[in-house]
Amino acid sequence: MTVEVTPPAPVDVPGARMRREIAEQPAKWHDALTRGGDQLRAVRARIWNRPPKAVLFVARGTSDHAALYANYLVQTALGVPAASASPSVVTLYGGAPDLRDVLVVAVSQSGGSPDLVAFLEMARAQGATTLTLTNDTDSALARISDETIDILAGRETAVAATKSYTGELLALAALFAGEETLAQLPALPELGEKVLAVATSRVEELAARYRYADRIMTAARGYSSATAREAALKLVETSYVSAHGMSSADLLHGPVALLDQSVPLLCFTSAGPDAREIAQLVDLAGERGVDVDVIGDGTVTGRTLPAVLPRDVSPELRPVLEILPAQLLAAEVAVARGYDPDAPRGLSKVTRTY
Amino acid sequence: MTVEVTPPAPVDVPGARMRREIAEQPAKWHDALTRGGDQLRAVRARIWNRPPKAVLFVARGTSDHAALYANYLVQTALGVPAASASPSVVTLYGGAPDLRDVLVVAVSQSGGSPDLVAFLEMARAQGATTLTLTNDTDSALARISDETIDILAGRETAVAATKSYTGELLALAALFAGEETLAQLPALPELGEKVLAVATSRVEELAARYRYADRIMTAARGYSSATAREAALKLVETSYVSAHGMSSADLLHGPVALLDQSVPLLCFTSAGPDAREIAQLVDLAGERGVDVDVIGDGTVTGRTLPAVLPRDVSPELRPVLEILPAQLLAAEVAVARGYDPDAPRGLSKVTRTY
Repeated sequence: MTVEVTPPAPVDVPGARMRREIAEQPAKWHDALTRGGDQLRAVRARIWNRPPKAVLFVARGTSDHAALYANYLVQTALGVPAASASPSVVTLYGGAPDLRDVLVVAVSQSGGSPDLVAFLEMARAQGATTLTLTNDTDSALARISDETIDILAGRETAVAATKSYTGELLALAALFAGEETLAQLPALPELGEKVLAVATSRVEELAARYRYADRIMTAARGYSSATAREAALKLVETSYVSAHGMSSADLLHGPVALLDQSVPLLCFTSAGPDAREIAQLVDLAGERGVDVDVIGDGTVTGRTLPAVLPRDVSPELRPVLEILPAQLLAAEVAVARGYDPDAPRGLSKVTRTY
Repeated sequence: MTVEVTPPAPVDVPGARMRREIAEQPAKWHDALTRGGDQLRAVRARIWNRPPKAVLFVARGTSDHAALYANYLVQTALGVPAASASPSVVTLYGGAPDLRDVLVVAVSQSGGSPDLVAFLEMARAQGATTLTLTNDTDSALARISDETIDILAGRETAVAATKSYTGELLALAALFAGEETLAQLPALPELGEKVLAVATSRVEELAARYRYADRIMTAARGYSSATAREAALKLVETSYVSAHGMSSADLLHGPVALLDQSVPLLCFTSAGPDAREIAQLVDLAGERGVDVDVIGDGTVTGRTLPAVLPRDVSPELRPVLEILPAQLLAAEVAVARGYDPDAPRGLSKVTRTY
């Protein structure tokens, strides 16, 4: 375990880097889909022409939320079992499962965490095909993988990952989503600009409401459960709020006990199969006097925010858009509390775990 | 989503049921290994004689922590890929991955959650072999599974699951652990009695320290990461403390930002491959003025607790023992705060999610 605890010296006003990188996202998506399009199509074709028996993801932190999103895509669209693996099976216990006909996918902004490298090395030795999605194609993971996808997010300097997260989501959608969803990808950059334009002004009010909240719960279901987790992690990393993010189903199996008038609930849902369950959760929380907000297209509404997402985005692609307001919110809450979200305490851009 | 919000009427002093069920655990383990031994050996033989290509677990809440533990066992001992699946792939999106040669294992105290039932039905239709571990062999999950293991925990009346959790761990170890670990199972009931005897008196002091803590972080690595998650969930459910429990590697990739002098850190480790990383985390936290405690055999020590676990328990079986002090701690913290851990607000014994 190496933890580099010295954050980069701030060169801008607090949060300037994070806000800049949030704003860059639609342009980066456009870049990834055009400049990176051939590479994505080639790897996609190889996967779909001869699907693996299973797909295993390895990732940490924000990238693990992108992997969670991809778990749903692979099972639903590609139709093969998918799951996230624990690197310590290899690094601590020397496990070496039989991985013939398995595709092992590492997702890592930096491409450098030694536990992921060790897992991929084992996977290759055990017969797996390996693929890395990374923002650094010179990284250790890229060097040892059979194939590498450059997520083309550009250099990310804020410690809290934003554009690398949606870059990973986009690349994973391009690789694993069904044809119908794939056809909607080129519309995302423009939709992203619209979401940012609407959300930037509206999120401030929500940030003011959350300024003194000690705890926040975030919830969503299915594809969007990755958003709930990632939104909570952004709030934790930048604002040191004790945020719990999870699937609404997992929330009901225990952590719902935390919800009371002192804990706001932030949900993510829009028109789609997840809306009914989230609507019921919103009602349940409302009955307990919980302050509920919803980031979505207005299908389910909370207290403060209007619809900040466009209608008719498929549930498969919604995670790429709905994290944008949450990223802005985390930056705003941090600044309102007097922190610099570009350089959170105790974190560095690259964390190495073994 | 059906949430039965009426807890059973308390019939004892607060926490009496939870304490009773915590204390019963070693006797229940003995029962499961003797009365349930033939069944465990028969199912184990069928799995090991013709190992599946992969094992997928479905579970919620506490049972999902038992499944996380089993993920490590299956990959390390049985040597096949293993992971936890998301039921909403089926219940929300109608996904139907190809599951031929896959063993799908549902872990559920009640055996009743509709989303797990739907996942198992899909799994059967898609060619999987299905196995349910449950405390109710008349349950819906048991009825539709190819095989069912009765965890023999006896009726659990406290809302916070304790004996059903260790019952699930024990059954999973009996099914999936290697021969060397298997040989140590019969010693667990006696070791459990010892741990409870030592911990009961010592945990009170720690509960007093945690009484006014608003947040607590729990961490461990590998097999014991299930313990960290389950310990946090017990604190959340019974004491409404904002507890975050996770793998120490995941902690370092973001949530470590939450750690400061106001947030105690509770680690789980003993002699084994995970001890070095936890020792480094303990040092790092100590440098930040964090109040650190360790539940373990004394290999790594914190501030308050002495060694409460015996030496020489293999890392594979340690989770069965190390959760005992954490269960006691959750009950003590709840009672110290004036809550009844037998009937937490907003929770019922059986949660149905779809």
